[in-house]
Amino acid sequence: IVFYPTQVDHFSFANPDTFLLRYLVNDTYFKDGGPIFFYTGNEGDIEGFVKNTGLLMEMAPRFGAMVIFAEHRYYGQSMPYGEESFKDPAHLGYLTSTQALADFAVLITRLRKTASGAANSPVFAFGGSYGGMLAAWIRMKYPHLVAGSLASAASIFQYPGITDCEAYSHVATRTFQRSAAGCPGRIRSSWDIIDDLGKTGAGLQNLTSMFRLCERLTADDMPALVDWLVNLWMIYALIDYPYPANFLTPLPAWPVKEACHLIVSNEDVLSGVAAAAKLYFNYTGQTACLDISKPYYGGLAWQYQACTEQIEPICSDGVNDMFPAIPWDLSAFSEACYERWKVRPRPHWAVTEYWGRNISAASNIIFSNGDLDPWSAGCVLKSLSDSLVAIVMEDAAHHLDLRPSNPADPPSVIKARAQEADIIEKWIQEYRAAGL
Amino acid sequence: IVFYPTQVDHFSFANPDTFLLRYLVNDTYFKDGGPIFFYTGNEGDIEGFVKNTGLLMEMAPRFGAMVIFAEHRYYGQSMPYGEESFKDPAHLGYLTSTQALADFAVLITRLRKTASGAANSPVFAFGGSYGGMLAAWIRMKYPHLVAGSLASAASIFQYPGITDCEAYSHVATRTFQRSAAGCPGRIRSSWDIIDDLGKTGAGLQNLTSMFRLCERLTADDMPALVDWLVNLWMIYALIDYPYPANFLTPLPAWPVKEACHLIVSNEDVLSGVAAAAKLYFNYTGQTACLDISKPYYGGLAWQYQACTEQIEPICSDGVNDMFPAIPWDLSAFSEACYERWKVRPRPHWAVTEYWGRNISAASNIIFSNGDLDPWSAGCVLKSLSDSLVAIVMEDAAHHLDLRPSNPADPPSVIKARAQEADIIEKWIQEYRAAGL
Repeated sequence: IVFYPTQVDHFSFANPDTFLLRYLVNDTYFKDGGPIFFYTGNEGDIEGFVKNTGLLMEMAPRFGAMVIFAEHRYYGQSMPYGEESFKDPAHLGYLTSTQALADFAVLITRLRKTASGAANSPVFAFGGSYGGMLAAWIRMKYPHLVAGSLASAASIFQYPGITDCEAYSHVATRTFQRSAAGCPGRIRSSWDIIDDLGKTGAGLQNLTSMFRLCERLTADDMPALVDWLVNLWMIYALIDYPYPANFLTPLPAWPVKEACHLIVSNEDVLSGVAAAAKLYFNYTGQTACLDISKPYYGGLAWQYQACTEQIEPICSDGVNDMFPAIPWDLSAFSEACYERWKVRPRPHWAVTEYWGRNISAASNIIFSNGDLDPWSAGCVLKSLSDSLVAIVMEDAAHHLDLRPSNPADPPSVIKARAQEADIIEKWIQEYRAAGL
Repeated sequence: IVFYPTQVDHFSFANPDTFLLRYLVNDTYFKDGGPIFFYTGNEGDIEGFVKNTGLLMEMAPRFGAMVIFAEHRYYGQSMPYGEESFKDPAHLGYLTSTQALADFAVLITRLRKTASGAANSPVFAFGGSYGGMLAAWIRMKYPHLVAGSLASAASIFQYPGITDCEAYSHVATRTFQRSAAGCPGRIRSSWDIIDDLGKTGAGLQNLTSMFRLCERLTADDMPALVDWLVNLWMIYALIDYPYPANFLTPLPAWPVKEACHLIVSNEDVLSGVAAAAKLYFNYTGQTACLDISKPYYGGLAWQYQACTEQIEPICSDGVNDMFPAIPWDLSAFSEACYERWKVRPRPHWAVTEYWGRNISAASNIIFSNGDLDPWSAGCVLKSLSDSLVAIVMEDAAHHLDLRPSNPADPPSVIKARAQEADIIEKWIQEYRAAGL
């Protein structure tokens, strides 16, 4: 575990502050001149990503690679202003992807200067989800520092105007459909039932006890309850891994199948839905009650990013998907962001900064995607050139290829990992041939 | 003349301010779907660049192009904080190249959305000197918005650690040598004479009157006098155009030849040197006296940029060049910057942000260079790939190819302009073939 100093603001000189960013080094397998496998940390404590990302260490021996996990600013222990980091926009405003990429660029430059045997090491960026987007972007913006990237579940197209906001809901619905044909229909029919119950005191009481909620529901809470359930199903699809895992929460193997089993086998629609919710939140049996106000991931800092530059519209129509009809409403969203954070989203900035759909000028990026993962809707699913390679993994959820190998991994994932390693091998040869 | 609103800080949300950036549009020759020729404004009022940059309008009819000249923030009328823009680091700190590139990216996005017939127009960036660097960088950082760039005299390699700081002085000396073989020797011998005169009151008086200085020299002024003269010769080489021009100052054709004629034909070394100085500052005969404290170009805002991210080391050894031995002293430079602006340089940032010498991942950039121009020492002089094309123009000074055509243009420049137009034609065809 190492910390290095970096600018709070790389792109201006109005703020001269610096802070310490954390990164983890594992040079167990490193051979002089071998590659550096660099995980571009995303929205969470970096140690969580180390646990859930086995691929780098598993590939390291073959390549004699050094493995680095770099933490994203404003997460874990990498706080620009310590406990004041979240105080107000003046302190929190430097939480952006462009600043984080610059942190990583500065770190890579530093590593190649200071780490023994790494002066000529090719660097490969790895990341999943938002970390995968960062891995893709660092190759796009800093290709002199990064010889290539593996961007898993990198939804770089999930921005306003370049991907239909319903696509995400379609994939989530399809994942449930594949687990049990009757499952999406049951979930779809739950919304009216919930809506009706929300109209009476007895109904609210009933909902509160069925979902074993921590706080008694009021009519005002109903939109939040629906939102919480919508997100629950989306998250289920996201982490539909083939073995028991503890990514966002401990769950059994194939959790969507388990959830759908509860939903379909239960005569009462709502009982089934509630049982599936309890499975998610209380698989270990240690959760006393369910809290609908708790975010699923990323916590406060990610909420802020989602309110500023990471505007990834998701909507549903209730017809082609299993969700209620929820349009994407930018102005309401903007109001909520201002209310909460005193900032307004800049919804078009990410497309300007990160090239929209026209990334053909980039090179040496692998985009891997699981076809169960709703985020795949905003990902690169087709290869764009010899060096912009898309891999779609059947029966795989959110960046399953990055996770530690498991006997239950589907063949598509085993194949993808082998292909990824071979491509990196090729890029290393090209790097050496170019004398870089 | 149009203004559009843009963020003061594109990369963070700590500062929500916006301001108006100026740009000039000429659509005289524009045909629907034709290209946009976009001048990435550099360190000065944009109207000055319009006058000195004829190439865009001269090429526009052939391509049916719209011509845009966009002003750089903190220059001309594009002041983020009006008259307070230079007040302190908190106001001035947003004067950086990365912010300026983002301004241009936002403007291009906007133009393609709002300008009639421009929705599918390929955009080509043009620029000279620092503007040429911006033209190269905008293609590197925002290739989805810019189909290609003509970067003239773009000294993107003139940064610490990637170009020898003496190279600049060598080229300047060579330019004087080519104008008159005895000229550099005379200039070289002037430094000891000046140094000696600076040691006595009578000598200082003598220098003051010979150079017709506005303020009487003191011993303390001697380093500034030497600095002023060193820069004078460097600037002479820079603007050694083959016809009378008024780029930084009005001068006759081939000013280095004129200056060297005065220097070599004068029996007294110092009289010759002083005559050459007066030629530069008083060619029109309207300057009452010479002011050694006045910067040659860019004014305050450029001084600030040169003190923050645009750290371009220049030095001389007095042996292989015609200058006194002046080492590059970063710490003294940093002190002076802090004294003046309350900021410290970040000398390595530009190499991290703009790829150092390893720009092979870029594409579609023409780097044109005049071989008389000292800045060519930090430019791309050799083609790096089929689409990173270097052109070296014999007998040409600083970005002569961008200037309006003139009967006195050397053949190399006429040829370069034709080659540039043909390459742009090819890029337009590729752009259309890709269906972008």
